[in-house]
Amino acid sequence: MFKRVGIIGFVDNPLVKETVARLTKYFEENKIEYLVEESTLSLSDLPPNGHSCNRSELGSSCSLIMVVGGDGSMLHAARDLVDFNVPLLGINRGRLGFLTDILPSDMEEQISDVMAGNYVTSERFLIECDLVRDGEVVDQGIALNDIVLQPRDSIRMIELNLQIDNQYVYTLRSDGLIVSTPTGSTAYALSGGGPIVHPELNAINVVPINPHTLSNRPIVINGDSEIEIEIAMENRVNAQVVCDGQNHISSQWGDKVRIRKKKTLIKLIHPAAHSFYETCRSKLRWAQD
Amino acid sequence: MFKRVGIIGFVDNPLVKETVARLTKYFEENKIEYLVEESTLSLSDLPPNGHSCNRSELGSSCSLIMVVGGDGSMLHAARDLVDFNVPLLGINRGRLGFLTDILPSDMEEQISDVMAGNYVTSERFLIECDLVRDGEVVDQGIALNDIVLQPRDSIRMIELNLQIDNQYVYTLRSDGLIVSTPTGSTAYALSGGGPIVHPELNAINVVPINPHTLSNRPIVINGDSEIEIEIAMENRVNAQVVCDGQNHISSQWGDKVRIRKKKTLIKLIHPAAHSFYETCRSKLRWAQD
Amino acid sequence: MFKRVGIIGFVDNPLVKETVARLTKYFEENKIEYLVEESTLSLSDLPPNGHSCNRSELGSSCSLIMVVGGDGSMLHAARDLVDFNVPLLGINRGRLGFLTDILPSDMEEQISDVMAGNYVTSERFLIECDLVRDGEVVDQGIALNDIVLQPRDSIRMIELNLQIDNQYVYTLRSDGLIVSTPTGSTAYALSGGGPIVHPELNAINVVPINPHTLSNRPIVINGDSEIEIEIAMENRVNAQVVCDGQNHISSQWGDKVRIRKKKTLIKLIHPAAHSFYETCRSKLRWAQD
Amino acid sequence: MFKRVGIIGFVDNPLVKETVARLTKYFEENKIEYLVEESTLSLSDLPPNGHSCNRSELGSSCSLIMVVGGDGSMLHAARDLVDFNVPLLGINRGRLGFLTDILPSDMEEQISDVMAGNYVTSERFLIECDLVRDGEVVDQGIALNDIVLQPRDSIRMIELNLQIDNQYVYTLRSDGLIVSTPTGSTAYALSGGGPIVHPELNAINVVPINPHTLSNRPIVINGDSEIEIEIAMENRVNAQVVCDGQNHISSQWGDKVRIRKKKTLIKLIHPAAHSFYETCRSKLRWAQD
Repeated sequence: MFKRVGIIGFVDNPLVKETVARLTKYFEENKIEYLVEESTLSLSDLPPNGHSCNRSELGSSCSLIMVVGGDGSMLHAARDLVDFNVPLLGINRGRLGFLTDILPSDMEEQISDVMAGNYVTSERFLIECDLVRDGEVVDQGIALNDIVLQPRDSIRMIELNLQIDNQYVYTLRSDGLIVSTPTGSTAYALSGGGPIVHPELNAINVVPINPHTLSNRPIVINGDSEIEIEIAMENRVNAQVVCDGQNHISSQWGDKVRIRKKKTLIKLIHPAAHSFYETCRSKLRWAQD
Repeated sequence: MFKRVGIIGFVDNPLVKETVARLTKYFEENKIEYLVEESTLSLSDLPPNGHSCNRSELGSSCSLIMVVGGDGSMLHAARDLVDFNVPLLGINRGRLGFLTDILPSDMEEQISDVMAGNYVTSERFLIECDLVRDGEVVDQGIALNDIVLQPRDSIRMIELNLQIDNQYVYTLRSDGLIVSTPTGSTAYALSGGGPIVHPELNAINVVPINPHTLSNRPIVINGDSEIEIEIAMENRVNAQVVCDGQNHISSQWGDKVRIRKKKTLIKLIHPAAHSFYETCRSKLRWAQD
Repeated sequence: MFKRVGIIGFVDNPLVKETVARLTKYFEENKIEYLVEESTLSLSDLPPNGHSCNRSELGSSCSLIMVVGGDGSMLHAARDLVDFNVPLLGINRGRLGFLTDILPSDMEEQISDVMAGNYVTSERFLIECDLVRDGEVVDQGIALNDIVLQPRDSIRMIELNLQIDNQYVYTLRSDGLIVSTPTGSTAYALSGGGPIVHPELNAINVVPINPHTLSNRPIVINGDSEIEIEIAMENRVNAQVVCDGQNHISSQWGDKVRIRKKKTLIKLIHPAAHSFYETCRSKLRWAQD
Repeated sequence: MFKRVGIIGFVDNPLVKETVARLTKYFEENKIEYLVEESTLSLSDLPPNGHSCNRSELGSSCSLIMVVGGDGSMLHAARDLVDFNVPLLGINRGRLGFLTDILPSDMEEQISDVMAGNYVTSERFLIECDLVRDGEVVDQGIALNDIVLQPRDSIRMIELNLQIDNQYVYTLRSDGLIVSTPTGSTAYALSGGGPIVHPELNAINVVPINPHTLSNRPIVINGDSEIEIEIAMENRVNAQVVCDGQNHISSQWGDKVRIRKKKTLIKLIHPAAHSFYETCRSKLRWAQD
């Protein structure tokens, strides 16, 4: 099924180290070919051996990549690996995430199921943006969850002009604007008042952050839409474009940020029993039957 | 372009009567063939003549039907005429609606544009439901905006079990549940806290009404989903199923309401300059540039 | 401290019966004088003896009344007993409530603490309403949580004119209007989008239910305000006034509902360790340290 | 009535200059003693004469101060002048504000009414904060609208521990926390999802900004409460304390921000016909009768 498995671990705590070590042990014992990402290996307690390579090589040479960490680690890995056509599987350090749904407690059993072909695949799209200044693309970004425009320095209130598919939507005065994928709809966009969007719907979720006009409600649009956000000249401060809450791009007055769906998709592997709604029930503490 | 035009007017006020009369005058003067719905004619001040027929005949024999009234009139006409493959054009009595966007003030000019082929078409889907009791379908409904489950007699709090595509979602304790089309997303669902869904997105908007659990947020799902709502046995009162806020179906404990997209679509005709976002700006009083 | 204790149990399930029996046993063993409400006694498995009386007599002759049941039972008891100047203590059947915060599991210990004087008192106000037709008061109501105006028959959308302290506030088109005490702010008003109001703030919480105009947000006003809600003549259906979700008063077009704070207060007794915010953390599943 | 009137104008645009000039002309013609704030005078086109002084002298020697500008100008003036026991009257540059409700169009007439004693007074409280580090107060702030804790550099998500009156409320993961006066409830707190609080209610409005836990809803507490917000050690970035959106105080991990009502109040003067709800209807675009 999966000929060679890659391992990425965001080795920021002992649990991740331990989980990476357990994974390599499992692969050794079960004679499954594997590769550990270089930087993961160097920070782990594993012996520095020949089973390592950099992230790009991992993407090219593995048929499955396991990411040990939280949802943030998966976001990072997805952005880096989306062009390699290799599926990702997330192993959480301790508590269930929306993207990392294998827990260390029953990891070996679940991985053995997945390796035996018992899994479901969920294809997710990413969004990408161009920062356009005077007609030139001066910077670019990519995100699995969301691209957010917000003022720098936490000054309240930025003024943005929104166009969708070349149609003027509104001039927004707010703390910013979240453009989220369905995957990101349960992350920051949800805190901002946006709806839950089923992860496989072809839709983009546009959520104003604390808008001055109270009827500026979230808008769910076709996933193939072209979004253009102009940073109005009237703003006192500059804005920034933040991808997945992790990468920041500086912008200036009059800049335009163009956002659209990225053509290549990322595949997420889940245990066969995975249910999006069950994750919602657990993470959002929904009342149950 | 349009060989014969049908006229339906929900003749509940003098403005509608006057508008229907102006329409027939316009068609006479411009030698456009037209038919007035029987009941519209009988309540109007027009002479009872041969240009009338019932609504089904109108649907079969016209190539365009003009509906004079508010958005509610359009909902009614759309449900009645969806199977006749005839487009609808809405003429409002006085103020802009989401569905009726020709105003009496410049009616003749706009209609003459439409008759000359200058218009845009928006295809909208309806949703339909079966009320299932002991495995039998005991009643059915159809809606262009929304199908709402709510308690009868305004007793607070009903308990519902929701399944989407055979997956258990949650047990909801609330004032009810709105299942809305994109078209309905700017109607009752919006008051209930749901997002605006672009009218041409293939999505269904599931909005709990005043849920007891605060994290039971609106969910936007694929338009081809099968939704099943079970009215839990625990309820003190019976529930009802309300289609477009107009048709009420009584239900009992243990009944299941199955909702899905209707296969045939309805076409709405808009003036060429129509913009969904402009209607939003006007109706929702969004700040403008 | 408390010379004679009254017991009211809403004997709707075996747990309440059992808890009432345990209470009487505890009082017998500890030689504490007590009285059981007649209807509670008749539905319980206790021997019909001389320790019973009706609710009014209970109010006059006891210095503390224990209510066994859920928050709904406490609302009922508070409305009935507010004029008797006797404090209430709520014993829940199983899970914590906002008003009933002694659990059966450690009931005897907590009651013994309370009887020894280790408790906190929380004074709560009720609201009362007059239904005024043609200048005459035709009906009245009282509530500890909330007085709600809503359409009968679950027809959507009622039109109401709101005045506060003789000042016109707005004409509201909505599913109704909640007027809530601080005590009621964590009940229905919270589901309707209202804020949490600290139980001892002298304030009234006015929360529109699914308003048509999205900026019709909850308003928190002085607890001594006079609220007048006129049921507009334009409504298609009649409205009803619902007190604590339990008592329904029918109204007609043109009726006015006048709501104000009731002069006499009700005292709630809590164990000494009671914290309002802890109840919030538990009931609303807030994240904790 | 008012023996000497002070004039403050935030001379950031021609309209303010013109309005200040009209005011001085009006006072000259009507033989009303007045003083112009020095910095206002220097930026205006008025002749530099003896009628000017600095802001403190203005506060000590005038019995009424007129502030020409937007709501932001009033916030600034209120913070500067709260200890001088002099009432403020706001004259807006063009559109109605919540604090500045005299429009240039009918300024002379309205001012002449006010000078004749036809006005209403609204007493508003401010809130003040201490930034406490290792038990020492290292900085202080004051606000008429709101004191906001938020991360610096617009990094999402800060972790705060909230105590009210020495009771632990919750650990909040959010974009920040707004502590607002009733006056500020219609400003940033409203965009953040808070309720409208009547300006004369003795209450403080605590509104989490985009909280991670969806049930972390706004809380309205007694105006005399002591609020303590600890900036948790777990944060990746430092936080800042922002007063009225205008003054920024830097803070560090482990700092505590203590917020309470300021003892001295500020008086706002309104034309006699002023109604808070009318301002709401206008500014929030509420539907009207």
